[in-house]
Amino acid sequence: MAQSVYFFGNGVADGTRQMKNVLGGKGANLAEMTNLGIPVPPGFTLACATCIEYLKTGTYTEELREEVTASIARLEAVTGRRFGDPASPLLVSVRSGGPVSMPGMMETILNLGLNDATVAGLASQSGNPRFAYDSYRRFLQMYGDVVLGVPASEFEHLLTAKRLTTGADTDADLDATSLRALIEEYKTLVRNRTGSDFPLDPRDQLWGAIEAVWKSWMLKKAVDYRRVNHIDESLGTAVNIVAMVFGNMGDDSGTGVAFTRDPSTGERRFYGEFLVNAQGEDVVAGIRTPLHIEEMVDRLPAAYRELLKVQDTLERHFRDMQDLEFTVERGTLYLLQTRTGKRTAASAIRIACDMVAEGLIDRAEAVRRVNPAQLDQLLHPIIDPGARATPIATGLPASPGAASGIAVFDPDVAEQRAARGEAVILVREETTPEDFHGMVAARAVLTTRGGMTSHAAVVARGMGKCAVVGCKDVVVDAQKRLFSVGDLVIGEGSWITLDGGSGRVFSGDLPTIPSDVVRVTSGQLAASQAPLYQSFASLLGWADDVRRLRVRANADTPRDARVARGFGAEGIGLCRTEHMFFEGDRIHAMREMIVARDERGRRRALAKLQPMQRADFEAIFEAMNGFPVNIRLLDPPLHEFLPHGGEEGKMLARQLQLTRTELNRIVEGLRETNPMLGHRGCRLGITYPEITEMQGRAIFEAAVRAKRRNIDVQVEIMIPLVAAAREFDHQRAILEECYRQVVATMGYEIEYQIGTMIELPRAALTAREIAATAQFFSFGTNDLTQTTMGLSRDDAGRFLPAYVDRGIFPDDPFQVLDTIGVGRLISMAVEDGRAIRASLKTGICGEHGGDPRSVAFCNDVGLDYVSCSPFRVPIARLAAAQAALAGGN
Amino acid sequence: MAQSVYFFGNGVADGTRQMKNVLGGKGANLAEMTNLGIPVPPGFTLACATCIEYLKTGTYTEELREEVTASIARLEAVTGRRFGDPASPLLVSVRSGGPVSMPGMMETILNLGLNDATVAGLASQSGNPRFAYDSYRRFLQMYGDVVLGVPASEFEHLLTAKRLTTGADTDADLDATSLRALIEEYKTLVRNRTGSDFPLDPRDQLWGAIEAVWKSWMLKKAVDYRRVNHIDESLGTAVNIVAMVFGNMGDDSGTGVAFTRDPSTGERRFYGEFLVNAQGEDVVAGIRTPLHIEEMVDRLPAAYRELLKVQDTLERHFRDMQDLEFTVERGTLYLLQTRTGKRTAASAIRIACDMVAEGLIDRAEAVRRVNPAQLDQLLHPIIDPGARATPIATGLPASPGAASGIAVFDPDVAEQRAARGEAVILVREETTPEDFHGMVAARAVLTTRGGMTSHAAVVARGMGKCAVVGCKDVVVDAQKRLFSVGDLVIGEGSWITLDGGSGRVFSGDLPTIPSDVVRVTSGQLAASQAPLYQSFASLLGWADDVRRLRVRANADTPRDARVARGFGAEGIGLCRTEHMFFEGDRIHAMREMIVARDERGRRRALAKLQPMQRADFEAIFEAMNGFPVNIRLLDPPLHEFLPHGGEEGKMLARQLQLTRTELNRIVEGLRETNPMLGHRGCRLGITYPEITEMQGRAIFEAAVRAKRRNIDVQVEIMIPLVAAAREFDHQRAILEECYRQVVATMGYEIEYQIGTMIELPRAALTAREIAATAQFFSFGTNDLTQTTMGLSRDDAGRFLPAYVDRGIFPDDPFQVLDTIGVGRLISMAVEDGRAIRASLKTGICGEHGGDPRSVAFCNDVGLDYVSCSPFRVPIARLAAAQAALAGGN
Repeated sequence: MAQSVYFFGNGVADGTRQMKNVLGGKGANLAEMTNLGIPVPPGFTLACATCIEYLKTGTYTEELREEVTASIARLEAVTGRRFGDPASPLLVSVRSGGPVSMPGMMETILNLGLNDATVAGLASQSGNPRFAYDSYRRFLQMYGDVVLGVPASEFEHLLTAKRLTTGADTDADLDATSLRALIEEYKTLVRNRTGSDFPLDPRDQLWGAIEAVWKSWMLKKAVDYRRVNHIDESLGTAVNIVAMVFGNMGDDSGTGVAFTRDPSTGERRFYGEFLVNAQGEDVVAGIRTPLHIEEMVDRLPAAYRELLKVQDTLERHFRDMQDLEFTVERGTLYLLQTRTGKRTAASAIRIACDMVAEGLIDRAEAVRRVNPAQLDQLLHPIIDPGARATPIATGLPASPGAASGIAVFDPDVAEQRAARGEAVILVREETTPEDFHGMVAARAVLTTRGGMTSHAAVVARGMGKCAVVGCKDVVVDAQKRLFSVGDLVIGEGSWITLDGGSGRVFSGDLPTIPSDVVRVTSGQLAASQAPLYQSFASLLGWADDVRRLRVRANADTPRDARVARGFGAEGIGLCRTEHMFFEGDRIHAMREMIVARDERGRRRALAKLQPMQRADFEAIFEAMNGFPVNIRLLDPPLHEFLPHGGEEGKMLARQLQLTRTELNRIVEGLRETNPMLGHRGCRLGITYPEITEMQGRAIFEAAVRAKRRNIDVQVEIMIPLVAAAREFDHQRAILEECYRQVVATMGYEIEYQIGTMIELPRAALTAREIAATAQFFSFGTNDLTQTTMGLSRDDAGRFLPAYVDRGIFPDDPFQVLDTIGVGRLISMAVEDGRAIRASLKTGICGEHGGDPRSVAFCNDVGLDYVSCSPFRVPIARLAAAQAALAGGN
Repeated sequence: MAQSVYFFGNGVADGTRQMKNVLGGKGANLAEMTNLGIPVPPGFTLACATCIEYLKTGTYTEELREEVTASIARLEAVTGRRFGDPASPLLVSVRSGGPVSMPGMMETILNLGLNDATVAGLASQSGNPRFAYDSYRRFLQMYGDVVLGVPASEFEHLLTAKRLTTGADTDADLDATSLRALIEEYKTLVRNRTGSDFPLDPRDQLWGAIEAVWKSWMLKKAVDYRRVNHIDESLGTAVNIVAMVFGNMGDDSGTGVAFTRDPSTGERRFYGEFLVNAQGEDVVAGIRTPLHIEEMVDRLPAAYRELLKVQDTLERHFRDMQDLEFTVERGTLYLLQTRTGKRTAASAIRIACDMVAEGLIDRAEAVRRVNPAQLDQLLHPIIDPGARATPIATGLPASPGAASGIAVFDPDVAEQRAARGEAVILVREETTPEDFHGMVAARAVLTTRGGMTSHAAVVARGMGKCAVVGCKDVVVDAQKRLFSVGDLVIGEGSWITLDGGSGRVFSGDLPTIPSDVVRVTSGQLAASQAPLYQSFASLLGWADDVRRLRVRANADTPRDARVARGFGAEGIGLCRTEHMFFEGDRIHAMREMIVARDERGRRRALAKLQPMQRADFEAIFEAMNGFPVNIRLLDPPLHEFLPHGGEEGKMLARQLQLTRTELNRIVEGLRETNPMLGHRGCRLGITYPEITEMQGRAIFEAAVRAKRRNIDVQVEIMIPLVAAAREFDHQRAILEECYRQVVATMGYEIEYQIGTMIELPRAALTAREIAATAQFFSFGTNDLTQTTMGLSRDDAGRFLPAYVDRGIFPDDPFQVLDTIGVGRLISMAVEDGRAIRASLKTGICGEHGGDPRSVAFCNDVGLDYVSCSPFRVPIARLAAAQAALAGGN
């Protein structure tokens, strides 16, 4: 039979840090510290398996009871105190602690072992009867609530009543006598509620507390938390029983928390706070203001010297920044807990790099240490943490960063006022491609509908621009040019501030802090002046050394392409040509094309667009010199380019020399019930081959022009929304004919590849047929997720958040790739496609390309590259490296 | 080297009927008839392989030339005539003929061998110089066009000019002299156009014709036809060269076509038409009215007796009804072709049954003989073929049958006027579930938008009601209550007639013929009085004996369920509960539920619906006594139940005691960008568990009530739109709780199964997870096709027809299951699901369940059943039998 109870004390422990699965994180580290000779109060840990056994059988074995009894005896021997001894009582704390840190479990019970007899011992030991009775009162209250199930509110009622009858302002004003009376009232309450007396035997108290910890593993909040976070239910929790030490035994005592390095900046300095003559809960309660840790040198000098040694030992031992809890009892230091400290992205990067320089860890370990998702923090401005303001509403944090500006409700107004130099924030119910110019002009975007992958969210992330979406409490009245939140009304021109990292919306112009990394990347700051950037660059360089997966960016304009290169993108994985049609005069030519009555009319309009497209492509090829550029042919349904009524419709009709009725009929005729599944993608190119011809010629001409200028052009042309190989072949034939014509006219040959976006389940299912002629597959995981799951990202807001909350979906599938559904299609398509064409290039270009877990999947399934928003390129680079280090593919 | 030329003549042929792939259908049957001793003019066939060889190399071999030369010599010997002999010229016909009958190939060239010298021989042989020169003129014209590429219109110009200069009214009035002059003009035309003289050597003529046949294999129309009909391009066509016989050599000559049984009724009688003193093309030209075949007994008695013997021999030999072409030359009968005759459904069934009775074929063969799709003809009334009318417009033939009625443009009006006993046809731009009561009231439905699987089409087919949809030329003005087609305006109350089998729309009240089969099935006619029904029932009985696949029906009401049983449905595969919510008061309660502010309000409204649902279910269980009934929980998005403005909106607001603004806000809040991918299916049941509870209780209570009445209830409850196993489990838990409550209250236990509709790719991809708890999978192939292909059936009309025409999709995937895409998902899911649960029941319940090719796929992939509209049940039964006979699964 396996050991169930692990003792630690007097420099020797049964456990080690390797035994997290047996002892939980807290227990394993208490054992480890003990073994290291670090002062830890003695105690023992009941293994996690005892919890599972108890939950299975509803009881515990005689063997376990004996092991616990023996451990208590050992504890009594080590401490020289005894359970229930009125003269020198042994008091313990009881705490849960699973292998994985988990909120929602049972809280700490302190001072277990107190009863009517031992409280006197505590009073004489501490020399402070009030403290002893207050401890007893708190113990009764906590134990009564957590273990005996008496509602906490009822104890609070009695406490409040006592304050009122004694005239005490606060609990601290209750004297020992009042507390003793209160203790009797508490015991009566427990008797009335439970039908039994409060257990006064410390052993009974202990077993009650142990069972309560075990049962807390199955509390609803714990079960829910595990389900959402994929924590194995069969792990169970350990129970830690530790001899009490008291930081509140006088001015030679104290308690505190500390970090071995600065968790905010990563600076290598001991960082923390402490309180003299206090217990742990006093720090948390926030009644007294804690002191900076350096001040310990004056107040508790010996303990401080000891603590400095201990923190150094711990960091060197664990080779990572530690978060410590300690107590000083009458000059003697005790460590109560150590664990890996949470930190900001800046801190994580700096610590990783510093530790490499210090020889504590190697580069691979440094790469593993930083959470890729956190890198986002380094790239976007943030609201100055010093600014004090209360948000007026909170939406979804769609695109990080912070921005202030005046609220405007119309893209044209946004453009006009931005042109006048005003900072604007575009506020819409939801955005459409028509709003694009307004989004370009705006500093940030706020919408009231749509989710994390709505148009506003995707486009804003693509531009690295702050966005808060789906902010339901905000009601927009675009007609009246205002929005309201409850009674608060904010009109056009009023200042608001958005925090895209938290989804918060503020009234007014809050100060923001720009990101050093971005300033260096965009050439506004010298790298030498930005130590954080240097760490960032080192770390990503090490990541690049180990990763297999290439990282590209989704970029639609030459400007985006340059930003992407700055972040280390190795090419463009998705250049959406339609965004080019919304700028300036282009939208006019595009609309002329759409409303044309016949092919001749369409060709006339397309001829106007061609030179603009060509110029864009040439500039993009230049920005991506030497790297591949993947250009997707026109994809969205045509109605997205037309206004849907109103003033703009009237103007358009005039421009196009149509009557309003004619224009309305055209708009109406293009209306679709399910535009997502409608006339778009290559279906447009097949219905109107002249569109594909125009785009094909613009691409090839731009490539030839660039090549003439000695630019290393690597063109990939992507045919969207293919469901059948014959669609692909139809469009490919048109493009190849364009190429022949361009070569014949311009006399230069270039290399190019033609492939397809796999964004429909059928394309993945028929990968063999398609790979016969397609040279690459780019998985468009946004649409592939929508079709595979039958989930419109524009409409899912009404139920998807609840699905994720309840664990029906483990994650939002538009943020984290659904590996068992969508992912299965991807791996089938890769396998089938490569069976036909060994050289098939594969990548993804959906939003998932910037999500670390999804990047890991792409690595493991053998894709060649991922492509994501420029601002997520660093995240993808790091995630790809971590996936490679984890041994996938 | 394989033989390339196959001779037939004098009772001996090189080929046989088994050699269709070598000789084509025509050539093989000419050889077969020769071997049977049936009089066939001698000739020879160039094997199909010669065509492929020629197309590959652009030329033909010396060996082939020698073989053809030898065959001509044999033909000369057998006929006693010689190529180019002015006294006794050998003339031949040249015809293409591939292994599969295929329009668009080269037409027949008759009288090849004529030139300036041999025309005289023909004149003296026929004793009719005008005939000889007219034949020569026709030969020049046909050969010039087909072989030499001179436009047919230019010959026609010269012919017209000749009529005008000679004062001839018709071509037949041109005398021999004029024809001789015209012949010279034709030759000059050919010389000018081609730069060479018209070939006068019969051997040159022959090779020219042969090459023209070969080349015609690659004509665009032939290529397109093959692509669309999946005919293998590598087959090639044979060339048949047959000695001419002349039915126009006097009153002892003639020509005709005949069927061995009546192709319309199947009656066993020799049936056909003939003309005395005529050639085949005269029959086709329709200038003279042909005589009934029986009249041959007086006009050509010996030949007729011979023909009767021949047709009997042929039918017994081929064991199927034959379609014959014959010519009588001076009293001697010649068969020019025999092939399996095309026939109506009624005829096909009668012939199959009769032939079994006659011992010609066995039952399995009879089952194979009838095209399942044709059975539709037997179930729907048709427009009386005697009625003469011109359609005013043509749409898609969405649901067969014919119906006349007054046009109405509003479902309420339809209901009101139908209640007054008027026959109404509902005319809408498109229908929605709101129109349901109007469709129920109407005799037929006409829509201007939507495709073969639009709401109107699906619902109408489900009800076995005539529908023409997507009739683009019809412009509906619902406000003015009229529709127009060009200048024609048809207002409310005007009579129109629809032919749902052809998509034609007529003005006026055309007479229709009801179907005997339907009258028997519905008990309006005794089976003994309907011989066709008896054959129909026998054939389907034999089909039932051999099929493995069960056939169920999609039925939403007790009435539908009874109709389905009448057609032999073995249960209900899909009972859509939402249709029940549109009748009478129910829609009001449903709307009350939707607009309710909280769960309490929803429960109040649901409580009103529950007894109605329960009563429906009980009646359905009764109608399906002993057969399974699969009930799908609420599926469509809630906005489908609300009016979208107008008068109805105003009324509704009043009924629900809401302001218009409040109602509009609710309707607006439910609006979805892509409702197909929105808040529907089990997503509703998860958001509003009380809906699932109400339905679950109604189902179980109905089942218990029915069981108490000794009805054998087999309940299956289907959870729709599942994407993840956890959704299914969530809903299943609610249903199981309902069951426990119902059993506790009512004290009766019943058997039931809970399963899911697999209609999202992800459900198929995660079949293992879902099958862990689901007891059946029903593939909803309509939605599964939409999501797998990313194709909205409501919107696809703008490009899908062109896709099918051009062969980009082999078929409309909403009509014929896409086996390589959607089908792959189905077979994966079946395999994965059964790996987890061997007893998993599987079926399909989309529109494809009534499509013969899709039924064959379902059989082959091992499904347990298909479910289709009641009126397609016979089709599915027969198709399932044919699939079983074909050896699949």
